[in-house]
Amino acid sequence: MSTYWSELTESLEPYVPGEQPKDRTYIKLNTNENPYPPSPKALEAIREAAGADLRLYPDPTCDSLRETIAAHYDLTKEHVFVGNGSDEILAFAFPAFFSATRPILFPDITYSFYPVYAQLYRLPYETVPTDEQFRIDPKSYSVPNGGVVLPNPNAPTARYLIVNGIKEILEANRGQVVIVDEAYIDFGGESVVPLVAEYPNLLVVQTLSKSRSLAGLRVGMAFGHPDLIEGLNRVKNSFNSYTLDRLALAGAIAAIEDRAYFEETNRKVVTTRERTTAALRELGFEVIDSLANFVFVTHPVKEASELFAALKERGILVRYFNKPRIDRYLRVSIGTDEEMDAFLDALRELAV
Amino acid sequence: MSTYWSELTESLEPYVPGEQPKDRTYIKLNTNENPYPPSPKALEAIREAAGADLRLYPDPTCDSLRETIAAHYDLTKEHVFVGNGSDEILAFAFPAFFSATRPILFPDITYSFYPVYAQLYRLPYETVPTDEQFRIDPKSYSVPNGGVVLPNPNAPTARYLIVNGIKEILEANRGQVVIVDEAYIDFGGESVVPLVAEYPNLLVVQTLSKSRSLAGLRVGMAFGHPDLIEGLNRVKNSFNSYTLDRLALAGAIAAIEDRAYFEETNRKVVTTRERTTAALRELGFEVIDSLANFVFVTHPVKEASELFAALKERGILVRYFNKPRIDRYLRVSIGTDEEMDAFLDALRELAV
Repeated sequence: MSTYWSELTESLEPYVPGEQPKDRTYIKLNTNENPYPPSPKALEAIREAAGADLRLYPDPTCDSLRETIAAHYDLTKEHVFVGNGSDEILAFAFPAFFSATRPILFPDITYSFYPVYAQLYRLPYETVPTDEQFRIDPKSYSVPNGGVVLPNPNAPTARYLIVNGIKEILEANRGQVVIVDEAYIDFGGESVVPLVAEYPNLLVVQTLSKSRSLAGLRVGMAFGHPDLIEGLNRVKNSFNSYTLDRLALAGAIAAIEDRAYFEETNRKVVTTRERTTAALRELGFEVIDSLANFVFVTHPVKEASELFAALKERGILVRYFNKPRIDRYLRVSIGTDEEMDAFLDALRELAV
Repeated sequence: MSTYWSELTESLEPYVPGEQPKDRTYIKLNTNENPYPPSPKALEAIREAAGADLRLYPDPTCDSLRETIAAHYDLTKEHVFVGNGSDEILAFAFPAFFSATRPILFPDITYSFYPVYAQLYRLPYETVPTDEQFRIDPKSYSVPNGGVVLPNPNAPTARYLIVNGIKEILEANRGQVVIVDEAYIDFGGESVVPLVAEYPNLLVVQTLSKSRSLAGLRVGMAFGHPDLIEGLNRVKNSFNSYTLDRLALAGAIAAIEDRAYFEETNRKVVTTRERTTAALRELGFEVIDSLANFVFVTHPVKEASELFAALKERGILVRYFNKPRIDRYLRVSIGTDEEMDAFLDALRELAV
């Protein structure tokens, strides 16, 4: 508290990211990072960009990157927006498309940043209950609202909604924007990016942090009708003209272009996920079928909070949310096979 | 316009940055970039950071960079905030410290992003007239207000206010935050960073874009009482947890540490500025004494808009603002000696 804070600042309950501990080296399965390094071509492009031109501002419209992304997804650059991580894109999208007059809808169990954005811009929201298995029922989004935000697969549950389910939500909400947050889509789900041609109310948000192993570079992208992209640009250009630095632009272009590496690493993550899921079930865990790079698990007997602490003591970090409905669950990112073996061994040692 | 835009989005008049043309190579004197490359140590640090660890999120609290900056300015890291350019820091500071109840004050002639921030957050503002020579009178800020924003040196005029003038404004505004935007302070002005220990209402904002030749890396920094820094963090963590990527953190640390290079390049810019100022005056221009890396100039006869166009045709880009009071002026960034000679030669060719 400070007398100099605005009333807004006082009222905020900021987002709390997963731990990034500095005290010791952990097997880090807590923030859904990719266990494999970025594309060597991306790293090379960054090194090449680390030269005298860094004295110059980056391209504020990020044209080259947007063209590269558009080509990859069979769109034009007018359908593409890029930002400093998908979080920043979401932070622009909330004020760009939502208003104080009608509530935003999102699932009761979802990415915990959504209510924080709503708070920052003083936008009302309502949460829509998922069922007891955290499944999203598209019909529950057919109620009056000012916009919808929906991660697919959902976080932290990993629940995936098929494309027809998303379509049903889009149809029922023709009058307002539906944001589909596809941070985890590349690990087995089907993207709705192709639907942007059909639905002018659809904004799809993705990130290079997970499937392109570039959490440290901060690049997100969004796809939508050019009117929606223009709306995002209006907010962005009222906030910061240059949100992506030259190195991020260069690295992101090379990463998007290296489709083979992207497909190979994702395949490895998926294989390890399936193996981990089977092993966890053998240990008695309930594991929600996942199309993401993490699994959401609960044990009928063992307390998740205790497992979290015991694993941490053994040098393995997973994510525990002390929140209603999910406080008996752990979210475990998919690491390398070796890391997951160490995780499974630790569970066995804990006599799970 | 789109039916999907919020009322806010419709109302925005976004900031327009200086041209970053891609059609041909210009002598770029239009966006106050440094003509000298970044510190070789910064470039080396970036290349080293371009490795497998980019798969991991950066440190959300940017501790190492903040410690490095704090050491450089004889403060603690609790007095330091860093962001994705000083523009982002200002974009956080407006909602963090200003409210809808009382107007923000800034000069009538100043950085044109300030009214845009006010608009984005629906904050009222009033502009305070500078005198006919664009000088800022500290006494004119002794009126009821909700906060003050003041660049020093001012942009685009280059007018500098001495530390005692800033102190007078701080004294008169003990009840609200005074932001001093020192983007250009390292080119000869005296910084008020040491005053943060004395004035809990002072926030000083700086950037690595100008004096550290890193416009392409997007790093800004702010100095203030830990309560103010905490206020900025509350807004930042309600917007985007990771605003600085790993490469920006590594490069910024090395750039701050390389004090010798920083001092050497700034000295060169200052020398060229003084030489350019003298030559322009010989050509009949009025040049406001500058302690920045640009000069603000007008000619008693020649129209600034015409000079701007004629210079552009000759491959030299300067900045022209078609706005009341300053539409007879050009803002000219200080380039290398060779670039400024080409600029001066072009003026002579134009029979100025």
